[in-house]
Amino acid sequence: MAGPLPVSPLAPKGGFPDLPEIGGVRFAATEAGVKYSDRADVMLADLAPGTVIAGTFTQSKTRAAPVLDCEFKLGGPSESGAAILVNAGNANAFTGIKGVEAVQAVTGAVALELDIPAARVFTASTGVIGEPLPHDRITSVISDLEARLSASAISEAAMAIMTTDTFPKGAARTIEIGGRPVGIAGIAKGSGMIAPDMATMLVYIFTDARIGFDDLQPLVSDICSRTFNCITVDSDTSTSDTLLVAATGASGVDVRGDAQFSDALAKVMLDLAHQVVRDGEGASKFVTVEVTGAMSDVDAKQVGLSVANSPLVKTAIAGEDANWGRVVMAVGKSGAEADRDRLSIRFGEVQVALNGQVAEGYDEDAATRHMQGDEVTLSIDLGLADGRATVWTCDLTSQYIAINADYRS
Amino acid sequence: MAGPLPVSPLAPKGGFPDLPEIGGVRFAATEAGVKYSDRADVMLADLAPGTVIAGTFTQSKTRAAPVLDCEFKLGGPSESGAAILVNAGNANAFTGIKGVEAVQAVTGAVALELDIPAARVFTASTGVIGEPLPHDRITSVISDLEARLSASAISEAAMAIMTTDTFPKGAARTIEIGGRPVGIAGIAKGSGMIAPDMATMLVYIFTDARIGFDDLQPLVSDICSRTFNCITVDSDTSTSDTLLVAATGASGVDVRGDAQFSDALAKVMLDLAHQVVRDGEGASKFVTVEVTGAMSDVDAKQVGLSVANSPLVKTAIAGEDANWGRVVMAVGKSGAEADRDRLSIRFGEVQVALNGQVAEGYDEDAATRHMQGDEVTLSIDLGLADGRATVWTCDLTSQYIAINADYRS
Repeated sequence: MAGPLPVSPLAPKGGFPDLPEIGGVRFAATEAGVKYSDRADVMLADLAPGTVIAGTFTQSKTRAAPVLDCEFKLGGPSESGAAILVNAGNANAFTGIKGVEAVQAVTGAVALELDIPAARVFTASTGVIGEPLPHDRITSVISDLEARLSASAISEAAMAIMTTDTFPKGAARTIEIGGRPVGIAGIAKGSGMIAPDMATMLVYIFTDARIGFDDLQPLVSDICSRTFNCITVDSDTSTSDTLLVAATGASGVDVRGDAQFSDALAKVMLDLAHQVVRDGEGASKFVTVEVTGAMSDVDAKQVGLSVANSPLVKTAIAGEDANWGRVVMAVGKSGAEADRDRLSIRFGEVQVALNGQVAEGYDEDAATRHMQGDEVTLSIDLGLADGRATVWTCDLTSQYIAINADYRS
Repeated sequence: MAGPLPVSPLAPKGGFPDLPEIGGVRFAATEAGVKYSDRADVMLADLAPGTVIAGTFTQSKTRAAPVLDCEFKLGGPSESGAAILVNAGNANAFTGIKGVEAVQAVTGAVALELDIPAARVFTASTGVIGEPLPHDRITSVISDLEARLSASAISEAAMAIMTTDTFPKGAARTIEIGGRPVGIAGIAKGSGMIAPDMATMLVYIFTDARIGFDDLQPLVSDICSRTFNCITVDSDTSTSDTLLVAATGASGVDVRGDAQFSDALAKVMLDLAHQVVRDGEGASKFVTVEVTGAMSDVDAKQVGLSVANSPLVKTAIAGEDANWGRVVMAVGKSGAEADRDRLSIRFGEVQVALNGQVAEGYDEDAATRHMQGDEVTLSIDLGLADGRATVWTCDLTSQYIAINADYRS
């Protein structure tokens, strides 16, 4: 590919949001020249002593070395500080023992510079798979990063972790609990696990809330199952996906079991998850698939993902074609319990099919008008029980092929 | 889409093969005008008394009415004859009670004309989903079909069942058992379960071998799991896929437990399965994915299908890019047991990765030369145990998007 991709037409209007500073967190970004030139490609987040770090990771069986290292290190609080270091341009995946050595070198250098244990340094690498990470280029800029640390540099961090993303991604919420403010701010990268050679989604969320690991981790896992694990661009799964939530406790506000906090964290995670879909390669439409009436929530999600991953459904949406036959097909192949003669489908507000047949008086023009917008909603009711789920995806356009196949020619 | 699609560049050289006549089977095709005009769109196969019929069907939970009807009718031999009637242009799927009525009308009319029980009449419909089948157009041509029946008309039958196929598909084998000839001839349609609004693969195989249902059905199911259930174009599954094998017994040769017969039947089924992949929409390369060293054959097939269905792998192949990082990714996401550090990959004869790292002396130019051919082989060794499977697919090109999305614009 020559030159940067144009910004996705689905990018949030107004650009990168104004994110609040989070007590106990400082950021820095700089140019290490891992692969790109003339842009920042490494970011450091410095976290105050007492920070708790929870996370979720790719389920791939071919996980990259930094992922295995991070999983092992989750926890806190500890008396020492902590740090997150991320590079773009090289994924340090499928690199064997050299990959482990690179993680050791980078985490060791960060630990030395910040005077914290290496066991509290979390890394991630995103970019080309299978090439050794030139870790010396990273270790040589760590003192420079330390010197630049600033509570207000989160947008620079969001830009430094981009690969084929067409816009940086950020989201935040500030809530009040007992009259005291608690902030949550997060950044993400990913154009849908599908960037050429650079398949990774990374998410970092920071809060000054006070919460123990045993409370934070299940909360993060639960919200993740309803947000990041409910998005798909093309069904492909990165070897490096990483989501970390760091709670510094700097606000002094205990949020354990607080519904307002869970709700705000869920909103930040959902916002970032949607931004990843909005930057899906070649995406021209943001698609919501709502499934109700399934035998269970698990079944509903299975149906939703089957529809959202179907190339036939996705190309029909790209073609603004209210092709409900393809939706029926994708429900049928999902493996979840379904009864053809109880299935009902809506496109937006338009009832297309009811109880396994075309709805009486179905207005195809109205359905087509809905498909012509850049936000498309498919609602599928299985008519069996109360299971429900919502899944988000984008359409499949020739631009996807251009980015992923034709770019060599 | 305006006008017919150009014939796939992967179509077999030499056109439709010269298929042998099979004792006990006669064919006819004619124009019923179900949807298309100026082409035959309905075919009838007349089967002699004593014919055994085995089959396999789509696993979809939203199966079409003719599929449910056929499943129920498998069996034989019976003293009466049997028949297979197929129409193209309308799938009679997602049509509720009207769909069942249409099947009743068509099977009843065939039964009356041929003087056989309706329980021995098998139908299939392929085409648009969700529109009532205008079954009177079919019933009105059945006496015409009966009048045209001929042992040599199998190629006309193969053409009458096409929808968006770019070439008719046929294959045959003749073997000798105890000095007496046994023939097997089959036809198929399908451009990979992915044709716009017309997602169906249909396969009909005829033999004059003598074999009971209890021997034929497990043989057909077993071969199907290694042939038609090992191909994929885009992971989408039709509501109507049907494969029937009719054994008339006219040769008088008992083939129960005969390895030569099983082998010949497997070759015909594999040949037809490959022809379906070669007609995959937009296909420019025929891809073989060989998986060895898995914990089980089931795991191996899971890995093979994960690779063969990955949009990233398929677009890389379209771009003639020896992108083994995407193969690693697809192995990792398959869910099957895998160990990153034991994984080895070949593209053609070129060793790309060995034990979880780039192979020493890896020759990228040689790998690229292999990718430039129109037959690409990916070999993946998981290095764990003896499980193995082979899966076939095609690449994903912008022509796929053009056919499935852009055709309205």
